[in-house]
Amino acid sequence: MGAVVFDISMSLDGFITGPNPAPEQPLGAGGERLHDWAYGLASFRERHGEPGGETNPDDEVLSEAFSRAGAVVMGRKMFGGGDGPWGDDPWEGWWGDDPPFRMPVFVLTHHAREPLAKRGGTTFTFVTEGVGVAVEQARAAAGGRDVLVAGGADIASQCLRAGLVDEIQIHLVPILLGDGTRLFDRLGPERIELEPIRVIESPRVTHLRFGVLR
Amino acid sequence: MGAVVFDISMSLDGFITGPNPAPEQPLGAGGERLHDWAYGLASFRERHGEPGGETNPDDEVLSEAFSRAGAVVMGRKMFGGGDGPWGDDPWEGWWGDDPPFRMPVFVLTHHAREPLAKRGGTTFTFVTEGVGVAVEQARAAAGGRDVLVAGGADIASQCLRAGLVDEIQIHLVPILLGDGTRLFDRLGPERIELEPIRVIESPRVTHLRFGVLR
Repeated sequence: MGAVVFDISMSLDGFITGPNPAPEQPLGAGGERLHDWAYGLASFRERHGEPGGETNPDDEVLSEAFSRAGAVVMGRKMFGGGDGPWGDDPWEGWWGDDPPFRMPVFVLTHHAREPLAKRGGTTFTFVTEGVGVAVEQARAAAGGRDVLVAGGADIASQCLRAGLVDEIQIHLVPILLGDGTRLFDRLGPERIELEPIRVIESPRVTHLRFGVLR
Repeated sequence: MGAVVFDISMSLDGFITGPNPAPEQPLGAGGERLHDWAYGLASFRERHGEPGGETNPDDEVLSEAFSRAGAVVMGRKMFGGGDGPWGDDPWEGWWGDDPPFRMPVFVLTHHAREPLAKRGGTTFTFVTEGVGVAVEQARAAAGGRDVLVAGGADIASQCLRAGLVDEIQIHLVPILLGDGTRLFDRLGPERIELEPIRVIESPRVTHLRFGVLR
């Protein structure tokens, strides 16, 4: 069976967005800096329907994460930001007609709605029964591959507290952002011991992979 | 000239102590976990006047940090905790008669007092004129070697904001502590770009070294 992997880019000071994330700037002010390492890579471009791009150790890490995954779990903000319309004219999210996931995506939300099928194999399924059910449905859909918990911070914390995460991959970006959305915002009180699995270095980002010890 | 290096152990969720640090438990509840990787090492034991100990990549990193350094800067809490007595019967700090530093230590404080000389070459000098002066005095005392900014979090933030730090070495401990003292507590608003210098891995801790770009 695949692993449940929480995979995200984080600044050295622990932020996954810049300051003031909002519907019009979901990554916060200048938060794109956290993903600079990925934008030019071949596997990133391929997922966005574009040819070419760099092949390097960063690309191998990104490509591996995509190819190991069979389903994605994300929060509603990551799907579609703040308060998009729901109902007769449902908000279709950030991801356009041809989202880069190309696999089933389970969106944790309080608002029930019908699944949303997009081009290229991405289907957004909306789960209102909590993170445990979202991960369970993703596991079933992943067909033995990994479930990628893609964010945001709330979902990550809920999954970690519920003991649902097998591995954490942090793309540690060499910057002190100074403010923004914290990835780990005082998870306490129970400590979670990890086990370093591997480190892959590049000039732009350090890829840290940990196993979660139970 | 040596570099000003900020060197500290941090959990993956960004804490440098456990919850509720206090004079009777300066590392907070269970915060010793952050230094477990160091206690048994030969260079740690040697600094504490004890023979033997492990030699491994962790030991090389610790030994290098000691041998490159010519002076230390620390905050008053790291010197001696909360509200120890000052004056006729001054509080002598946490570090005993034979502190492990064996070099000049500059303690940033609001309370002027005479320098305190200990065995083995450690002299605590108390600096009341701010972090810039503390680093300047440490540089002069270091004789071309590194100045080690040893903590705590306040001192680190002040040094970073003032542009006084050349390198950051984080000993990243594979644990989510869940609560405690944050190393980087919203430094904003100015971003600080870093440059990865090296990564040294071990099963217990990942040693990350960054240069601070100006």
